[in-house]
Amino acid sequence: MDNNSNEIRNLEYLFSRLPGFGPRSARRIVLYLLKKRDTLMTPLSSAITLAVNNVQDCSICGNIDTLDPCNICKDPKRDKNIICVIEDVTDLWALEKVQSFKGKFHVLGGVLSALDGVGPEDLRIDELISRVKKNDAKEIIIALPVTVDGQTTAHYLKENLENLELSITQLSHGVPVGGELDYLDDGTITAAISSRRPF
Amino acid sequence: MDNNSNEIRNLEYLFSRLPGFGPRSARRIVLYLLKKRDTLMTPLSSAITLAVNNVQDCSICGNIDTLDPCNICKDPKRDKNIICVIEDVTDLWALEKVQSFKGKFHVLGGVLSALDGVGPEDLRIDELISRVKKNDAKEIIIALPVTVDGQTTAHYLKENLENLELSITQLSHGVPVGGELDYLDDGTITAAISSRRPF
Repeated sequence: MDNNSNEIRNLEYLFSRLPGFGPRSARRIVLYLLKKRDTLMTPLSSAITLAVNNVQDCSICGNIDTLDPCNICKDPKRDKNIICVIEDVTDLWALEKVQSFKGKFHVLGGVLSALDGVGPEDLRIDELISRVKKNDAKEIIIALPVTVDGQTTAHYLKENLENLELSITQLSHGVPVGGELDYLDDGTITAAISSRRPF
Repeated sequence: MDNNSNEIRNLEYLFSRLPGFGPRSARRIVLYLLKKRDTLMTPLSSAITLAVNNVQDCSICGNIDTLDPCNICKDPKRDKNIICVIEDVTDLWALEKVQSFKGKFHVLGGVLSALDGVGPEDLRIDELISRVKKNDAKEIIIALPVTVDGQTTAHYLKENLENLELSITQLSHGVPVGGELDYLDDGTITAAISSRRPF
């Protein structure tokens, strides 16, 4: 790569630091961009610059938006008495996409993990508790991942929120819509049986 | 995605147009970037802007570089009598990485393909012929992919260069270094047998 210019090498290096990228795939993307300079690279360049200059973390819920408070926190039509607690902004985007939840969100920014050294002080838990107290929330929906770490975090939240007067709920677990039993893992089937409902 | 800002949606859309990306992986990358605004997104933003403003196609060999003619075409230490014909700039980068070729390159920009409707006029073949005539090249190394289209293109080039006084060579085919016979395809084994050499 002696004769490869510094600009291109630097771009390759930066792309190779993105998740799912290695040196080879980064080079492929950079070449693809360089070949489509007018139609793709120039718009991408402006879009990234625009986003990096305008996007910020919402100080209330932890969402990423161009406004602070974000569009969701500012929306008067959304029920501020129901707060859905999620791990990450992607979960917020996934929930928003289906448009079936009309409350507010609270992004924790991760889950407790002894292995990765993530403690309560690393997550936005204190912010959640003071937000609940201040806004007099009526319900907390815990929508954390159904993993050991996710459920540990859910229990930790429950312990810390129990003394406040509100109902704490969690997403139901069971067979996914469109899912075939044959392809499901044991944990999901067990959950679906133990929380079975009258037909 | 109602409440997702336009800047973020646009960025997701642009990333989803890159090869190997879909809407979901684009969203993952965008979120990753937005979370690492200072350490990764800002440098990437400047690197893309810098590259898009400075990088251009070399008018001689078709390489992508910040200079025109590119660093390789300008290098007086490289043998201008040997031209290695390649499909794409990635091939040039691959050959440059091993540093075992010290001639010049010629990027065709693709290979002939009846299915994809790529004809000789879509490739930089005329440029190659006039370059060979003008520079009085002594050898053309054809380093096109060993596929039907690649070899069709190789034969087409041979026919069009034969009447000029130069030797036309191609990369040798056979067992890759470190390769085990057991894992090789039939074509490679057949090529390795038919072009066997004295030991």
